[in-house]
Amino acid sequence: MVGASEKYMSRLFRDGKAMFLAYDQGLEHGPKDFNDRNYDPCYIIDIALKNKFTGLIFHKGLAEKYHEHFSGKIPLIVKVNGKDNIAKTEPFSPVVCSVDYAVKLGAEAVGYTLYVGSPLESKAMEDFRRVHEEAREYGLPVIGWMYPRGQYVPNDTDPTIVAYGARVGLELGADVLKVKYTGNKETFKRVVQMAGRSKVVCAGGLKTDANTFMQQTRDILDAGACGVAVGRNVWQSDRPDKIARALEALIFENAPVSKAMEVLSA
Amino acid sequence: MVGASEKYMSRLFRDGKAMFLAYDQGLEHGPKDFNDRNYDPCYIIDIALKNKFTGLIFHKGLAEKYHEHFSGKIPLIVKVNGKDNIAKTEPFSPVVCSVDYAVKLGAEAVGYTLYVGSPLESKAMEDFRRVHEEAREYGLPVIGWMYPRGQYVPNDTDPTIVAYGARVGLELGADVLKVKYTGNKETFKRVVQMAGRSKVVCAGGLKTDANTFMQQTRDILDAGACGVAVGRNVWQSDRPDKIARALEALIFENAPVSKAMEVLSA
Amino acid sequence: MVGASEKYMSRLFRDGKAMFLAYDQGLEHGPKDFNDRNYDPCYIIDIALKNKFTGLIFHKGLAEKYHEHFSGKIPLIVKVNGKDNIAKTEPFSPVVCSVDYAVKLGAEAVGYTLYVGSPLESKAMEDFRRVHEEAREYGLPVIGWMYPRGQYVPNDTDPTIVAYGARVGLELGADVLKVKYTGNKETFKRVVQMAGRSKVVCAGGLKTDANTFMQQTRDILDAGACGVAVGRNVWQSDRPDKIARALEALIFENAPVSKAMEVLSA
Amino acid sequence: MVGASEKYMSRLFRDGKAMFLAYDQGLEHGPKDFNDRNYDPCYIIDIALKNKFTGLIFHKGLAEKYHEHFSGKIPLIVKVNGKDNIAKTEPFSPVVCSVDYAVKLGAEAVGYTLYVGSPLESKAMEDFRRVHEEAREYGLPVIGWMYPRGQYVPNDTDPTIVAYGARVGLELGADVLKVKYTGNKETFKRVVQMAGRSKVVCAGGLKTDANTFMQQTRDILDAGACGVAVGRNVWQSDRPDKIARALEALIFENAPVSKAMEVLSA
Amino acid sequence: MVGASEKYMSRLFRDGKAMFLAYDQGLEHGPKDFNDRNYDPCYIIDIALKNKFTGLIFHKGLAEKYHEHFSGKIPLIVKVNGKDNIAKTEPFSPVVCSVDYAVKLGAEAVGYTLYVGSPLESKAMEDFRRVHEEAREYGLPVIGWMYPRGQYVPNDTDPTIVAYGARVGLELGADVLKVKYTGNKETFKRVVQMAGRSKVVCAGGLKTDANTFMQQTRDILDAGACGVAVGRNVWQSDRPDKIARALEALIFENAPVSKAMEVLSA
Repeated sequence: MVGASEKYMSRLFRDGKAMFLAYDQGLEHGPKDFNDRNYDPCYIIDIALKNKFTGLIFHKGLAEKYHEHFSGKIPLIVKVNGKDNIAKTEPFSPVVCSVDYAVKLGAEAVGYTLYVGSPLESKAMEDFRRVHEEAREYGLPVIGWMYPRGQYVPNDTDPTIVAYGARVGLELGADVLKVKYTGNKETFKRVVQMAGRSKVVCAGGLKTDANTFMQQTRDILDAGACGVAVGRNVWQSDRPDKIARALEALIFENAPVSKAMEVLSA
Repeated sequence: MVGASEKYMSRLFRDGKAMFLAYDQGLEHGPKDFNDRNYDPCYIIDIALKNKFTGLIFHKGLAEKYHEHFSGKIPLIVKVNGKDNIAKTEPFSPVVCSVDYAVKLGAEAVGYTLYVGSPLESKAMEDFRRVHEEAREYGLPVIGWMYPRGQYVPNDTDPTIVAYGARVGLELGADVLKVKYTGNKETFKRVVQMAGRSKVVCAGGLKTDANTFMQQTRDILDAGACGVAVGRNVWQSDRPDKIARALEALIFENAPVSKAMEVLSA
Repeated sequence: MVGASEKYMSRLFRDGKAMFLAYDQGLEHGPKDFNDRNYDPCYIIDIALKNKFTGLIFHKGLAEKYHEHFSGKIPLIVKVNGKDNIAKTEPFSPVVCSVDYAVKLGAEAVGYTLYVGSPLESKAMEDFRRVHEEAREYGLPVIGWMYPRGQYVPNDTDPTIVAYGARVGLELGADVLKVKYTGNKETFKRVVQMAGRSKVVCAGGLKTDANTFMQQTRDILDAGACGVAVGRNVWQSDRPDKIARALEALIFENAPVSKAMEVLSA
Repeated sequence: MVGASEKYMSRLFRDGKAMFLAYDQGLEHGPKDFNDRNYDPCYIIDIALKNKFTGLIFHKGLAEKYHEHFSGKIPLIVKVNGKDNIAKTEPFSPVVCSVDYAVKLGAEAVGYTLYVGSPLESKAMEDFRRVHEEAREYGLPVIGWMYPRGQYVPNDTDPTIVAYGARVGLELGADVLKVKYTGNKETFKRVVQMAGRSKVVCAGGLKTDANTFMQQTRDILDAGACGVAVGRNVWQSDRPDKIARALEALIFENAPVSKAMEVLSA
Repeated sequence: MVGASEKYMSRLFRDGKAMFLAYDQGLEHGPKDFNDRNYDPCYIIDIALKNKFTGLIFHKGLAEKYHEHFSGKIPLIVKVNGKDNIAKTEPFSPVVCSVDYAVKLGAEAVGYTLYVGSPLESKAMEDFRRVHEEAREYGLPVIGWMYPRGQYVPNDTDPTIVAYGARVGLELGADVLKVKYTGNKETFKRVVQMAGRSKVVCAGGLKTDANTFMQQTRDILDAGACGVAVGRNVWQSDRPDKIARALEALIFENAPVSKAMEVLSA
């Protein structure tokens, strides 16, 4: 099959908009991101199901051991590569789940982090090729975490480099590109432009204050992104469902920030 | 198949508790761990069978050459990777037995050591992926020796790093995590918490005095671990069966340390 | 099958002459090559179809997401390897699209960049071997971007090194060789000579003034090349169709430069 | 199949004792080991067949080109890895003959050198795993040349390190371990002990005077080894058949050194 | 199949003697070896067919694009690995043509260069193993270019090292060994001796004056080599056919140098 199937693509979006809940931080960042509630995948699943998230991002182990809690209720996006952050070596993220196994786990899309510009990028590009083409055997969408990083990337939110990362994703065949915010709506428009027909979702990043986060999300959407892939700003919040509903207002109802803040403080 | 089969998982545990006898030290540490009795796998097998161990951990060669002594009498856990400790290079443990061959040897579970945080971790994660997914073809449980190590891990029993190692095991799909003790019940609770639905067994480590070892085991169990994977504290002891029975009291009867010490001096 | 099929070879040439439109710069150079029109693959496709280009060079992602705009209207050349230009490491270009997948995308030829003389060349030669032999399974022509580069290549347009690069292409089995211009018709004749029965097309390179570009193209053709593979000199121009028509005059009508300049200013 | 087949194992031993003639030195050491007679594999084969050797060790090329001289007359042990000694790099011995091809050559056992403790050991262990498991497909015995070597092995006959090397062989599944002599019967007993159910044969090493060699062989056997794998001490001797007969007395008749010396001077 | 088939072996020799025309220099040395005639493979083929060469050595690309000129008229020897000489890295020659594809091209033998003693030799030996065993699937003879080289080989025509290189070829299974001349008949005898049942052909090397070349060829043959693999001394000559006929006299008629010189000046 060429390209992702319409069936799977349509599952990831609602009216063309995406709101993914990311929970790959246990591997990527470790326990330091967690408190006594959000360490538990069940807590996260609960947030995902009670709100209008259009996809849940898990690594293989969580998808395997917690599937009965979310299976059939929300599209599963299996992150097929990953790494911890202990070794301070040039960035490379090995494949930790085959596409075949992701499919057995019920994945409706797969995610892959490409460290664009890393000295180890050539192996990563080969891995991405295989992941992409194996995903196509099933018609699965491929979401690229397009993350410029490494010794040749002094600033990974520099608009030029974020735009380059997005373009790499388009050229290599990713259907959805998860990118970092450039910090500026105008420069982010250029990122979206470079992504062409690959859809752009913006990473939430570190937990920030709600107003900043809502404004940033509004700008991202206005710049042409189709949504967000958020984690810490939701499940590190003490009011995750409200944050989720505020995001829904921005994303699915095209609400202004003021409306989102109202929802949040309701 | 997704996940480990119930059949195999239930074989490794008795009432949800595990007591594994580890004997992979011949490869990992060499003859220095052995005296004139315990160098002999038959001596070890004898200990395993006379007591209530729920699994016996062997490398391929021992499983192949001594199988008639234990086959059908105790679940065999084949350690599928391993290394000696001669070269002082960054830690990486190659696969020394395929999962297919482990199955031919009668394995009811496989063990894999992942040196978390090693600069060579990415190849290890790829190896682990293959081991995990090949094990799933048979429904075999995968036990991860989650051992942070290498130049970026100054202290491998630091609670933060042990907890991160455990989380890596959960995220990558291990069913049971063998971890080192943090030295403290409270911090070990956090390790168990991070392991989520992966079960935790604690490594016995260097031979210590019996009282310390029993107290440590009690703390580990109280912190939520489901058991231990012990070696030297049993087979380097001059009274291995009594040590085993004392451990049984702690693990399967939930006895206090005082009771265990009684058993030991009986 | 041995060699490229006549069917596919004949599709890439018109009266033995080639005029390819290259658009792999999004990956190779990034957004810096693009303005608000030419970032868009549709803009490029439009230029390709409105003029007499004999092939369109795309990476996998563009071929996948924009196929309905050009499929069946112009031969697609899928560039099967590529890299971005962020990391300043020795040149190596990984395979980003399998030949099988290129065929699914409708490719009628595949392109591969070989960085001749790179310290990483041996892996590249192995990759090229596989690409070449897999392409032969379908009878597909293989176009080699024969680009000497790396620490041992101080000047990549040195006539000696360009000629060596071309010869490497012939020896390894490429059907068409894309090479850089040596800057001189006489030295370029030697390049064409060394290419033997592999056909030579010259890369357009950086955008230059039209007169220089037309003269260079005339010299290239007079030196025996069968055509050009141009990108930036066309789609970075504010009159791409005129540039295309001027090139057509040179290539297909064997016109002098003066005639090409007339077409251009018509 | 699990383990080596009895059929093949029994072929390599006579009354449980082994006397292998090793001739892999052409690759390992080069022509410097040879004179005008013993450079010729036919000369070696002649020695092997005229005496009671229980196995002949050849690399692939010799097995292929000289098979009609020994086929069916003595068990062939194909050495499946090997290297020359020109480059002074950390020790690693690549696989130069697949097990499948060794079987086609008539091998009744395969030999593999593992440089224990080498910084390149992890790749070697992976190679050994494949060789071992492929050999098992045919029930072939695997003979491990267990040779600690490299920058972390200052003395490769140190009893501790020889014993560790032997143990590695047992743990990884070798059926027979070829080790170097520690120089001392008592320490060699420990080596044999660590080998468990893997049989131990001792390498002959550099040519030494006959008396020393016979005494060493006696000590090796008394320490529990099942025999020797000799080369230079036989075929560099000017009376190879007598050396062979003296070894036979020691190995198969359990003769004292004095008896062996008598045979030698008969 | 074990060993090369008689059918193919007999094709490469005439009365047990070989005279191969080598033309792999386009890849190995580049255009600097060529003038306006000999750059053209047709010119070379013409020389090969007009004289009594027993084999023509081409890389894949030439075999593919010029096959109609020689197919069925002279045995084709496809050189399956190769490299250019631009990068000054430790020598390693990647496989540039699979054996399967060489067979499709009509190869009746394959050639492989092994840089004996290179720090990269272990990968080369693995490649050679595969080439050798794949060739055996078809019964194809394997010709080893046994070339000691790299930082550990200060002098690649040192008799000791040339002899070692030849022995490596025998041990690894090559049927014919192409070696450099040691410069001396006596030392070359030792090279031939070490080659055992592998046949030896001597490389022609740099173009030298005809008398020296004829004398060298005579010495090589007298030392026991079965022939030569020549290139530059033939096709860089302004009288290639005469050189060829002079070589024929030496090789097939066992003529003295004086006779060869007569033929040459006839």
